[in-house]
Amino acid sequence: MSEAAANIGVVGLAVMGANLSRNLASREGNTVAVFNRSPQRTEALVAAHPEAQFVPAFTYEEFAASLQKPRTAIIMVQAGAATDATIDALVDVFEPGDIIVDGGNAYFPDTIRRERAVRATGINFVGAGISGGEEGALNGPSIMPGGSDEAWQTLGPILRSIAAVAEGEPCVTHVGHDGAGHFVKMVHNGIEYADMQLIAEAYDLIRRGTGKSPAEIADIFAEWNDGELESYLIEITAEVLRQNDAATGKPLVDVILDQAGAKGTGAWTVQTALALGVPVSGIAEATFARSLSSHPEQRAAASSLPGPSEQPAVADEAAFIEDVRQALYASKIVAYSQGFDEIRAGAAEYGWTIDLGAISRIWRAGCIIRAQFLNRIADAYAAESDLALLMSAPYFAEALAKSQEAWRRVVVHATGAGIPAPAFSSSLAYYDGLRAERLPAALVQGQRDFFGAHTYRRTDRPGSFHTLWSGDRSEISA
Amino acid sequence: MSEAAANIGVVGLAVMGANLSRNLASREGNTVAVFNRSPQRTEALVAAHPEAQFVPAFTYEEFAASLQKPRTAIIMVQAGAATDATIDALVDVFEPGDIIVDGGNAYFPDTIRRERAVRATGINFVGAGISGGEEGALNGPSIMPGGSDEAWQTLGPILRSIAAVAEGEPCVTHVGHDGAGHFVKMVHNGIEYADMQLIAEAYDLIRRGTGKSPAEIADIFAEWNDGELESYLIEITAEVLRQNDAATGKPLVDVILDQAGAKGTGAWTVQTALALGVPVSGIAEATFARSLSSHPEQRAAASSLPGPSEQPAVADEAAFIEDVRQALYASKIVAYSQGFDEIRAGAAEYGWTIDLGAISRIWRAGCIIRAQFLNRIADAYAAESDLALLMSAPYFAEALAKSQEAWRRVVVHATGAGIPAPAFSSSLAYYDGLRAERLPAALVQGQRDFFGAHTYRRTDRPGSFHTLWSGDRSEISA
Repeated sequence: MSEAAANIGVVGLAVMGANLSRNLASREGNTVAVFNRSPQRTEALVAAHPEAQFVPAFTYEEFAASLQKPRTAIIMVQAGAATDATIDALVDVFEPGDIIVDGGNAYFPDTIRRERAVRATGINFVGAGISGGEEGALNGPSIMPGGSDEAWQTLGPILRSIAAVAEGEPCVTHVGHDGAGHFVKMVHNGIEYADMQLIAEAYDLIRRGTGKSPAEIADIFAEWNDGELESYLIEITAEVLRQNDAATGKPLVDVILDQAGAKGTGAWTVQTALALGVPVSGIAEATFARSLSSHPEQRAAASSLPGPSEQPAVADEAAFIEDVRQALYASKIVAYSQGFDEIRAGAAEYGWTIDLGAISRIWRAGCIIRAQFLNRIADAYAAESDLALLMSAPYFAEALAKSQEAWRRVVVHATGAGIPAPAFSSSLAYYDGLRAERLPAALVQGQRDFFGAHTYRRTDRPGSFHTLWSGDRSEISA
Repeated sequence: MSEAAANIGVVGLAVMGANLSRNLASREGNTVAVFNRSPQRTEALVAAHPEAQFVPAFTYEEFAASLQKPRTAIIMVQAGAATDATIDALVDVFEPGDIIVDGGNAYFPDTIRRERAVRATGINFVGAGISGGEEGALNGPSIMPGGSDEAWQTLGPILRSIAAVAEGEPCVTHVGHDGAGHFVKMVHNGIEYADMQLIAEAYDLIRRGTGKSPAEIADIFAEWNDGELESYLIEITAEVLRQNDAATGKPLVDVILDQAGAKGTGAWTVQTALALGVPVSGIAEATFARSLSSHPEQRAAASSLPGPSEQPAVADEAAFIEDVRQALYASKIVAYSQGFDEIRAGAAEYGWTIDLGAISRIWRAGCIIRAQFLNRIADAYAAESDLALLMSAPYFAEALAKSQEAWRRVVVHATGAGIPAPAFSSSLAYYDGLRAERLPAALVQGQRDFFGAHTYRRTDRPGSFHTLWSGDRSEISA
């Protein structure tokens, strides 16, 4: 081990950490110190990748000594207690001005707490969301760092060197202070839940509506991937649907148990949106669709509940498939609009300055929701940075106007056929709710005033009012 | 003030506390000590209600001295810091074996924390949800106490004396230990959100579908209140819709600003359900519908988005209204089923023994969601106490089977007409999702395995599997 040879270090060398280390080492100008709690893993990585010229360390002291100042280390360990323990160990051996980066999937309030605690020692703490899975970590992820401006000075060039590149721009930006990076990564994952559920509903509708095989539907998705839906998730959907199971010869999708797992970031996104008062109904329905699927005892109990007595026919298959494509695109616009709303509301709540256009640009490559479409979001925020509602930007408003009739036909078909399409139908209800001139929320306010004296406002003058429901039913100012 | 004259005390004499004090004092065998931080309020209550023979106290010491042992006090102050301060003050003057009851709307994790802290002093702490608003507090609320068995020995007879009565039974039961009472009260409020939103959607559909006036629709709700929908919320909906605004002569519901407020219990219910993995989509859509309505800047931005080019006609008004009634009933069954699921999951998570049938019985009177319908829920749990899914109980399964075609027609109409019905359509999608033989969750699992190596299970044998998507695409055991 040479002293102070490395400009960047990685702690935690499981697959994500090992791949990120290799990515860092492969870029001009980087020398990478690597450390893992169990030394075997460090040794194995160094042995397997001599080309990386890693600087291995076997104690935290060695690790700190191997890093140039300001020392910069990226933690890639499990979220929760393991992350806290690693931070504590680094704080012990680092000095003021050094930089600790948590590259795991931390819940942003934890990042805010950690940043505050570490900052008190004079050391910088940066929570950085990293998206792209194992392959992204190795070849170029999308990176969402928070933390201080000071930390970004040192960290920026390093992260830019390893990030994915979209149209010449590295997919990394300084999202905002303290927990902003992990907040935005959380919403990224929430949007990912919605996107996946919408694709799943589109597949199910086409399969049940036309009887086409998964391989035939793979062709449809592959074709869609050449148009405005072009995205990584559409691309891999075609791959998954085309896959046959070697053991049975059946389509793999028919052999996979239909109970979706979740690691919690979808739920966090919705819980946070509820606290912020942002209606992210599409993300919520996607999260609930996964939990519904994972209750086999309830599904068994419900299996005898009847569906419609007659199945609506799909007269024109090609037209139906095109309707589904348009419904998918419209619902996807809603999901992204809701997600960007949540980021805007989070920034206001937590005092972050977040450039929403920059967020859409760093999601164009490297991450799971990468899509052509994100250029249109970037355009929308470039034209109007404080857009109140993404889906009202001219491009999206036009796309929604063009597809809303098809979208309605698809939801009508699903409803009539008894095919669950919770994310399609919820997104459309959201669309119709937002554009409604009057909402029956007025009746809800009347009910609340009746039973709880919660008061209401009036359309014709300012103030709060209460009707004396148990009295003479006159109205008083409240 | 006589020494140790009272068997129960109330701290906090705003409207809810004052009404609860009067309710307690009106029942045979109770003598009620009353205390408020500002003495004027105590004096005013005592002066206004000589018939109550209150025992006023002006310091916590006097309050404690006025109570027989074990001293029992119900706190009726604001949730949050005020509650904590009051608990601290009572702990200082109470002794082991005494009982502190928080009758406010606390978030149940706070109640769990407080119970643990107070229990360490030997004093009993009971979080009790109290529903029914001001009128219920005075004449008989539905009460949901948690806390220890020891506390319940003393508290049970007192709470039974003041609770609402349904078919001869007082609407109070010992829900479970520590935070169980406030948990169940939270879910009660979540169900209330769903119920109110469903009623609002029914009203909106009838109004926009038939052009009937609010007063005419009031008659429809009044009629519905004679059937299986009979409930307090249906009853007051008729009252609200019949009300005319004196200032303008218009129906009041047309003068009330259509932006619904919320005090957070709906959001808590959904946040908790997300943590428990329980899909409470109807409650979520109702909560989001309120927040959507309260974003006027977004609604303005969306106002130019188009609706359907042609409005579907309602050919037979009476048939349409009957369809809406059935859709409302079916969606309501879903909302309650989801709510009871959440209670069951919460009980399992927090180690509470909760009798779901007893919960449905104590909601039959006194509280906002009181309804005839709750007898059917009680029957269902009486027949099978560990029912996996409320809506699969014979009575509800039959009701859903009978109404599902009407429910579909209503959602189809709303979708085609561009009328937002998020709770109706989400509930139906939930129904269709649960009863589906296969869900496209299998595709979601395939996607997750593709991009994140999250593995999947198979339908035909145990274990977890991963396809080597970037390799030769063979399957390995994971």
